Amino acid sequence: MKATIGLIGLAVMGENLVLNMESKGFSVAVFNRSTEKVDAFLASRAKGKNIIGTHSLEELVASLERPRKIMMMVKAGAPVDANIEKLIPLLDKGDIIIDGGNSNYEDSQRRMEFVQSKGLLYIGTGVSGGEEGALKGPSIMPGGSKEAWEAVKPILQGISAHVDNTPCCDWIGTGGAGHFVKMVHNGIEYGDMQLIGEIYDLLHRLLKLDNSEMQEIFSTWNKGELDSYLIEITKDILGYKEDDGSYLLDKILDTAGQKGTGKWTGISALHEGVPLTLIVESVFARSVSSMKEERVAASKVFDISPKQSIADPKAFITMLGKALYAAKIISYAQGFALIKSAGKTYDWDLNLGGIALLWRGGCIIRSAFLDKISQAFTKDKELQNLILDPYFAQILKENHQSLREVVAAAALNGIPTPSLSAALNWFDSYRTERLPANMLQAQRDYFGAHTYERTDAKRGEFFHTNWTGHGGSTASTTYNV
Amino acid sequence: MKATIGLIGLAVMGENLVLNMESKGFSVAVFNRSTEKVDAFLASRAKGKNIIGTHSLEELVASLERPRKIMMMVKAGAPVDANIEKLIPLLDKGDIIIDGGNSNYEDSQRRMEFVQSKGLLYIGTGVSGGEEGALKGPSIMPGGSKEAWEAVKPILQGISAHVDNTPCCDWIGTGGAGHFVKMVHNGIEYGDMQLIGEIYDLLHRLLKLDNSEMQEIFSTWNKGELDSYLIEITKDILGYKEDDGSYLLDKILDTAGQKGTGKWTGISALHEGVPLTLIVESVFARSVSSMKEERVAASKVFDISPKQSIADPKAFITMLGKALYAAKIISYAQGFALIKSAGKTYDWDLNLGGIALLWRGGCIIRSAFLDKISQAFTKDKELQNLILDPYFAQILKENHQSLREVVAAAALNGIPTPSLSAALNWFDSYRTERLPANMLQAQRDYFGAHTYERTDAKRGEFFHTNWTGHGGSTASTTYNV
Repeated sequence: MKATIGLIGLAVMGENLVLNMESKGFSVAVFNRSTEKVDAFLASRAKGKNIIGTHSLEELVASLERPRKIMMMVKAGAPVDANIEKLIPLLDKGDIIIDGGNSNYEDSQRRMEFVQSKGLLYIGTGVSGGEEGALKGPSIMPGGSKEAWEAVKPILQGISAHVDNTPCCDWIGTGGAGHFVKMVHNGIEYGDMQLIGEIYDLLHRLLKLDNSEMQEIFSTWNKGELDSYLIEITKDILGYKEDDGSYLLDKILDTAGQKGTGKWTGISALHEGVPLTLIVESVFARSVSSMKEERVAASKVFDISPKQSIADPKAFITMLGKALYAAKIISYAQGFALIKSAGKTYDWDLNLGGIALLWRGGCIIRSAFLDKISQAFTKDKELQNLILDPYFAQILKENHQSLREVVAAAALNGIPTPSLSAALNWFDSYRTERLPANMLQAQRDYFGAHTYERTDAKRGEFFHTNWTGHGGSTASTTYNV
Repeated sequence: MKATIGLIGLAVMGENLVLNMESKGFSVAVFNRSTEKVDAFLASRAKGKNIIGTHSLEELVASLERPRKIMMMVKAGAPVDANIEKLIPLLDKGDIIIDGGNSNYEDSQRRMEFVQSKGLLYIGTGVSGGEEGALKGPSIMPGGSKEAWEAVKPILQGISAHVDNTPCCDWIGTGGAGHFVKMVHNGIEYGDMQLIGEIYDLLHRLLKLDNSEMQEIFSTWNKGELDSYLIEITKDILGYKEDDGSYLLDKILDTAGQKGTGKWTGISALHEGVPLTLIVESVFARSVSSMKEERVAASKVFDISPKQSIADPKAFITMLGKALYAAKIISYAQGFALIKSAGKTYDWDLNLGGIALLWRGGCIIRSAFLDKISQAFTKDKELQNLILDPYFAQILKENHQSLREVVAAAALNGIPTPSLSAALNWFDSYRTERLPANMLQAQRDYFGAHTYERTDAKRGEFFHTNWTGHGGSTASTTYNV
C-alpha cells in the first residue's frame, strides 16, 4: 500500500497536518531529518493510524503513489532549498513538491521556476491556523504550478477548514501568489493583535479595569460585529489563572517576538507604494516592545504622567469597541489594497472576494466580517478600496468619531496607540481631497528642481520654478528624494 | 596638462559639482553619454574655465593625472554598473572610481568588492544639497575603499560645505557605509518635510491662516531652535507669487513624488528591527498623496467635517512650533538609532557625533540643532538613544504636552498628522516601562505555541502554556508570526 501524500518536518505544524490528513482518509508517509522524531511520533500521536514512518528521503519517495506529492513543513529559507535539491533527483516528471511553510513569496516564485525547469511541479502554499488549525482544519492559500492544482486539490481542500460548506482553500495564482497572500494575512494578523493590545492597554492603564472586567468586555464584543478568533482568545487569556489563582497574563513579559512575515509585508508595501501604515506600525511596535531595557531606562528619564480624566468611562468603553472596529476595517482595507496592487504587478489575476472567503475559517484572523469583505469585492470587481464599499463606508461614518476620541484621549493621557492612530491618519489622508503635498512638491522643486504639476494645468505636465532667482534651470535627474 | 579629477554625467548635479571643483582650483575633465551635453556645457557655464570636455571614456581616462579619480554622477542602478564595467579595462591599479549618485548601499557594498577584485579602488559617496548645494558646497558622505580616502580627501573636503571651518565631509566607513548614511539622511529629510507639511496643513485648514500669515510664522520659527534650511525655504515658498500676484503654492498639485531613498530607509529599518515610524509614515504619506483620484472619490463618500474649535489660536500656533520641534528630535533619534544599529550589523565602526557634523552645512536637512546632536553622541559614546541625552530629554519634557495637544486636536478635527502622531506614539511607547506586549505574547503562545518569558523568571527562560487544555504540547518552530 502506497501513501497518498508524504510530509517532511515533524514540528508541531507538520505533526498536526499529518493527523488532520489521516483523519480525512488520506494515508500519509512522514519523514523528519532527526529520525528519532519519526519514531517518537509513530509511537505516540500517530500510533495505530494510517501513517507510515520513513527514515530517509529515498524511503519516503518509495512509499508514495504517483504522481508523488511531498509536502515540506520545515523552517523557511535554506532548509526548503536543501530539501528541494535532495528531492529532485529522487522524483519523476509530474511529481509535486509542496512547501507549506512560511516562505517568502519571492523564494516561492524562484523555486517554482527552478522545480518546473526540472520537469516537476511546485506548490508554495500558505497554511494558517497555528497548531490547532493545522490539526482541525487550517486556512490554506496555494499558489505555484497551476497544473499541480487538480492533483492536490482534494487533499488540501479536504483538510482545510470549511465555512458554510465551502473549503477555506482555493487556488490563488501562479508563482508566489499563495505565499504573498499568506504573508499579507500574517501582516493583518499583526495589525489585529496590536489593535487589541492597544485597546487592552487603554482599558487597563487608562480606565484601570481589572482582568475580569476586561474579560467581560471582550466577551460582549465577541458576540457582535467584532466576533473573531482573536477577540475570543483574548477573552480566554484575560481569564486564565495559574494554580495559585493569580492571572497568568500579568506575569508575561511585555516583549513581543516576531519571525519576519510582518516585516516582509511592510517591505512589500513600501515596494508597491501602497500605504500599509497600520500593519507597519504594529511591526515596529513589536520592535519597541523588545527594547525592554531601553524602555525601563527611558521610563525613568521621562517620569511624566500626562493626565486628562475620562468623563464617562462606560461611554468610553463603547467608543473603544467602535474605534477597534473602525481601525480593523481600515487595516483590512490597506491589506487588500496591497494584495490588489501586487496582483497587478505580478500578473496573478487574483480574486479578492475569493481570498476573503479563505480566511473565514481555520486561521487566526477568522472573523464575522470577512463575508462582508468578500461581498464587497465580488459585487464590484473594480472597487478601488474597501472603505468605498457602501457597507463599510456606512460603518466608518458611524464609527470614525469614536476612533478620533479614543486617539485624542490616548495622546493626552500618554498611552501609545500607534496602530489606532495610523488607522485614523490614513483614513483622514485618504478622504482628503487636497493634502499638503503641494508644500512638499514646492520644496522638492526648490532644492532639487524636481518639477511639479499644477492644479490649473493638465496632469502629466510638469513645471519648474527658479525660486531663488539664481542657480541652474536644468531639471534634476540625479538628486532623488 | 592633465586634469585632477574626471566626472561622468552632466545633469544638474554633475554640472554643478564640476563648477564647484573648478572654483576650488581643481581641474576637471568631463564626459557625458550624450556628448552634445559636453559641448553645450563647455560653450555655456564651463566657458573659460579649467574644464576639459571629452567625448569618450577613453579620452576622459587619458586626460587624468594618476592615480586617476573618476566620479560618476549618473542615475542610480544599472547605469552605474555599466560605467564601472566600461571603466575597469581602461584603468590601472590604484585608480579610483567614485559613485556620487544616490545608490543603494547594498549596491555600493557589492561594487566596492567587485572593483577591488580588479585591483582598483572604489568610493560610494552620498552627496546632499540639491543643485545649489552641489554648486556652492554640499554635504558629502564617503564610504568604500579606505585606501582611496587620502587621495580624494582634498577634493571632496575642498568642495564640501564648511561650518566653523570644519568641512561637511569626512570618512564614514567601508563598503556601503557612505550611501547608508546618505540614505538615512534622505529618510530624515522625508520626515522633516512631512512634518512641515502637516504643520502647514494645520495652520492652513484648521486655523485658516493665509500664506502671508504663515510666512511670518515660519520666519519667526527660523530665528529660534527650529532654524533650518527647510524652514527657511518653506517661508520663501509661502511668499512666492506668480506674475499675476497670486501665490504659486496654492496652484501646485498635491501629489508628492518620490525616488526611492525614503522607501529604502524604511526597508532597512524593518530589516534592522529599528522602529523608524515617523519616516515610514512620511514615505507612505507621499504614496497617499499620489492617489489623487482615489482621494477625490473618497472625499465625496466621506463628506464629514469633524470640528472642535481651537479656543486660543495664538497659543495653538506656539504649540505647533513646540510640537514640530519635539517631533523633529524624535525623528532624528529614530534615524540615528537606525544608523547605530546598521553600523553594528555591518561592522562599520561609525562615529555618530561626527556624522551629525556632516549635515550642518550644504545639505537639505542642515539645521541649528545638529551641533547638539553631535555633542550628545560625542559626550556619551554609549548613548542608547538621542532622547536620553539630558539636553534633548529636557526639551522633550518641555514640549511633549504641545505635541499631545496638537495630535489630539488634529484627530478631533479630521486633519491627518501621520508623522506627528507617529512621533508621539513612539515617544510614549519608548518611555513606557510595561507595554501591552504581554497580551501579544499570550496570544502568540495560545495559537502558535510560541512560548513567552515571565516577569518572575530570568530573561531567556521560555514558557509555554496549554491555554485550551487540549492540543499538542510541542513548542512551535514553523508557525511564524
